[in-house]
Amino acid sequence: MIHPTISSSRVEGTSVYNLAGEKLGSIDDLIIDKRNGHVRYAALEFGGFLGLGTDRFPLPWSMLTYDVEKDGYVVNLDMEQLKAGPRYAADDRPAHSDEYGRGVYDHYGVPVPWGV
Amino acid sequence: MIHPTISSSRVEGTSVYNLAGEKLGSIDDLIIDKRNGHVRYAALEFGGFLGLGTDRFPLPWSMLTYDVEKDGYVVNLDMEQLKAGPRYAADDRPAHSDEYGRGVYDHYGVPVPWGV
Repeated sequence: MIHPTISSSRVEGTSVYNLAGEKLGSIDDLIIDKRNGHVRYAALEFGGFLGLGTDRFPLPWSMLTYDVEKDGYVVNLDMEQLKAGPRYAADDRPAHSDEYGRGVYDHYGVPVPWGV
Repeated sequence: MIHPTISSSRVEGTSVYNLAGEKLGSIDDLIIDKRNGHVRYAALEFGGFLGLGTDRFPLPWSMLTYDVEKDGYVVNLDMEQLKAGPRYAADDRPAHSDEYGRGVYDHYGVPVPWGV
């Protein structure tokens, strides 16, 4: 790997695609564990149909794989799985507690990487 | 701790003070290890005297302690130590390689938390 790092400002706004190449949305924000600086999940901005606002869909960081050709992240999930996942409105942020994070990881079947 | 997490968008723009209460600058960006999503260091925006541009001073995440009353981060370092530390111009980003990160941690005497 040429560059082992990426900046938060570079991640924010980056497109996210599913394995079929469909664009799901883009990364809006990163939720970070204050204690150790580990990114728990990225908030995917998705939706916004018919004049309705977009929602934020938290995705575990480990689900995101950067694709150089697409200049975006690829995640292994389909639209239905995403739609059934945790979400919140941009102006209605949840507390992002340990418990909330556990719900995010559980929905996508990813082991929780922080102590519980 | 009421909120165990913080969002990258909230960190960006947050003020940074030294132990004497002097404002050093504000956080401009976070440099993240792609592989595991761990924040390696925060880029402190500092300087900008006499019409000159500000530089970015990378600080290991573990050096930043959030102070609720100040609504900012407090770091245990003085101005001279900061000025002698690694820095880069905003429009001249280094590669943020493992080696560069090691230099940042070594300057501040913080053990490197990633495999080397």
